Amino acid sequence: MKYNPVEIIIKKRNGKQLIKEELKFFIHSYLAGKIPEYQMSALLMAIFFSGMEIDEIQSLTEIYIDSGNKINFPLNYKTIDKHSTGGVGDKISIVLAPIVAACGCKIPMISGRGLGHTGGTLDKLESIPGFRTNFSEEKLKELVKKIGFGIIGQSEKLVPADKRIYALRDVSGTVDSLPLITASIMSKKIAEGAQNLVIDLKVGSGAFIKDIEKADKLAELLIKTGEKFGQKVSVVYSNMNSPLGELIGNALEIKECIKYLKGENIPDIHVLTKTLAVQMLLLSGIASNTEEAEIMIENSLKSGKALDLFKSFIKAQGGNPEVCEDLSLLPKAKFEIPVISNSCGWIDFIDSQNIGYALIDIGAGRKALDSLLNYSAGAYLPKKIGDYIEKRQPIGTIFCDNKQSGKEAAKKILESYYFSEKEVEKQDLIIKIISNY
Amino acid sequence: MKYNPVEIIIKKRNGKQLIKEELKFFIHSYLAGKIPEYQMSALLMAIFFSGMEIDEIQSLTEIYIDSGNKINFPLNYKTIDKHSTGGVGDKISIVLAPIVAACGCKIPMISGRGLGHTGGTLDKLESIPGFRTNFSEEKLKELVKKIGFGIIGQSEKLVPADKRIYALRDVSGTVDSLPLITASIMSKKIAEGAQNLVIDLKVGSGAFIKDIEKADKLAELLIKTGEKFGQKVSVVYSNMNSPLGELIGNALEIKECIKYLKGENIPDIHVLTKTLAVQMLLLSGIASNTEEAEIMIENSLKSGKALDLFKSFIKAQGGNPEVCEDLSLLPKAKFEIPVISNSCGWIDFIDSQNIGYALIDIGAGRKALDSLLNYSAGAYLPKKIGDYIEKRQPIGTIFCDNKQSGKEAAKKILESYYFSEKEVEKQDLIIKIISNY
Repeated sequence: MKYNPVEIIIKKRNGKQLIKEELKFFIHSYLAGKIPEYQMSALLMAIFFSGMEIDEIQSLTEIYIDSGNKINFPLNYKTIDKHSTGGVGDKISIVLAPIVAACGCKIPMISGRGLGHTGGTLDKLESIPGFRTNFSEEKLKELVKKIGFGIIGQSEKLVPADKRIYALRDVSGTVDSLPLITASIMSKKIAEGAQNLVIDLKVGSGAFIKDIEKADKLAELLIKTGEKFGQKVSVVYSNMNSPLGELIGNALEIKECIKYLKGENIPDIHVLTKTLAVQMLLLSGIASNTEEAEIMIENSLKSGKALDLFKSFIKAQGGNPEVCEDLSLLPKAKFEIPVISNSCGWIDFIDSQNIGYALIDIGAGRKALDSLLNYSAGAYLPKKIGDYIEKRQPIGTIFCDNKQSGKEAAKKILESYYFSEKEVEKQDLIIKIISNY
Repeated sequence: MKYNPVEIIIKKRNGKQLIKEELKFFIHSYLAGKIPEYQMSALLMAIFFSGMEIDEIQSLTEIYIDSGNKINFPLNYKTIDKHSTGGVGDKISIVLAPIVAACGCKIPMISGRGLGHTGGTLDKLESIPGFRTNFSEEKLKELVKKIGFGIIGQSEKLVPADKRIYALRDVSGTVDSLPLITASIMSKKIAEGAQNLVIDLKVGSGAFIKDIEKADKLAELLIKTGEKFGQKVSVVYSNMNSPLGELIGNALEIKECIKYLKGENIPDIHVLTKTLAVQMLLLSGIASNTEEAEIMIENSLKSGKALDLFKSFIKAQGGNPEVCEDLSLLPKAKFEIPVISNSCGWIDFIDSQNIGYALIDIGAGRKALDSLLNYSAGAYLPKKIGDYIEKRQPIGTIFCDNKQSGKEAAKKILESYYFSEKEVEKQDLIIKIISNY
């Protein structure tokens, strides 16, 4: 062996910078089965603690990308993607892609599954009867060409280094390391062929990033890494102290997306979608300023063009587009259990992460990679921080197939809301936007 | 599963204290093959960084002990053991055990093999023709009863949790964690049935502990953990800036031990052996004060009783006791290569760790667990810090079977000595002694 794996682990553990050759050796040997999982997980934990300098992160990203295929689109395609760092009730990709595609962007979206307390776009889409996400990169290119966007899972061929290492991070407690997050996000977004990128950086109790300082650090790493590969990157910091939208759970979120695309006003969904869409149109050069971008976005909704694209997208990925006209075609839970407040006051804190975990127990999310989902399970939770709740008033509703576990989830969810006797100010959804554009 | 392994890893990673039940679950599941190596190595790295509180270490030690058999000796046996944290040329156990046994202690010694830059007592003993260390705990009890001491390797049945986790630490860069070191040392010493324990805590360039602060921390953990299990523990801090004794290498160290037991004065071996022996006699209650202990120790050497016991011990463990009378029965290297100084002055620093690594290259130590040893390989290095060296004077001699690698080792060893133009004070071998007695 060119290097001693233990010496590399100890070097990083002792806070030293690894050179690109060392990182390459370690990752290539790992992928080739010559470095075992336990040495990789030890290195990942050492990286969690010791961190990485920006050039180490850029090297890691490049090694990730070069471990597999790269999708290339014609140069005149204004390819762009959005990545969310993950929140409770985050279904934005599903409405954002058709809206932005309707304005002329091309969105080759490689998305993920839910794990931990946040859901995954692929799981949500797969709750549509027949919908598939396990397509090849060739199919994604076709979808992007024909419809303007496609949303598929990461195949074995695209950034396999990240795929394997991500799976290992997930089971070794090393997910929330900023350098590893950066390389993981950026490698996929570069390999999928997105010229530019908008990041929805969630900050708050329902996100893994709880404070602005950490968010700033991550935003800097993401932007500098994108830059290294010629990407324009905008980072939108969005408030994740309240769950996003009113419905949480796979089929329930699809329902909410359809309602929104059909014109229903869901304030926070609309604000966040519009903000991200504006950035995407600006970075792509399709709109020259925010006002112009906003008009295009409103038009794509009002004209029904975004909804039409959404239907074509469902059809092209094997799903039944009739769900858009008949919501009863979506999976539906057997029971509805109200969540009744036992206090009164203004909501001043929502433990959204706890809500996410409570919903895992009724099948809305995964405990392990091989857990089966109950697509119909979830909750209606429309209350936000600053809303006033009366005692014995419903805070929301649980949708479940098992009454007992549903009741337990309702109890856990109730415990996730904290009340104040004094009026609490409503929070802004968009915290700030930074960009290298 | 009772707990989620990832949650336990993250809890420790986030600097929280683990409760005993969590540690028990994790280790039992690991031993049962239900928690994979990569989760254990991630937890070990998290422990490396986050540390452990004393009650976590005590719990870990107890879980280690309970993972296997415990050897029990009759209550009237004054069982005691000595543990060394590992140094270059450290052959003390081999002379200490017969001396202390000759004074009436019973020493059930579970010892280890060399890895990294320090040698192992088992390897040294196995350089005696026929000598075996792979005996059962029953055989150890027999040896202790009959001869007063025995030195065997750790079987699969004794502290299997430590055995497996130690092997994993070695290949995951998590060896030098004080909590893990403490649990590893103490579990073996308690499980082997030692009522009391003396620790030779090496401090200096040739030890993994380079400074007193870290040594104090480890001493505290060792003493408090021993206390929890009713042990009296003395920690002797010994200077490991110069290699111990004059010979380094498996058969060479046996030769030095025999010479010492036969009455040859090797100053540092004698000082350290006597200091440790005094503590063992005091803790066991065999001597009531240091003076009395010292007299007993000198008598056991002068009377030849220690040497006789050493011969009986060799015979009982399958070796040829004739080596004590005829040193030529020990493996002998083909070549002797002098290490010639190219500077002059007083030695002011010896990189003993580097000497250890240089000797691995000629087969005196192991690169990997399955490396074959050359028992005859090693070096004669009598010079200590404070000794004056003339230019072109020999600093020592390499013993090897391959001239080329011997010459390279000689070069590396020469580079391990640093000289000063001004006189350098000789260093005390014993730094301090602390005890809960």
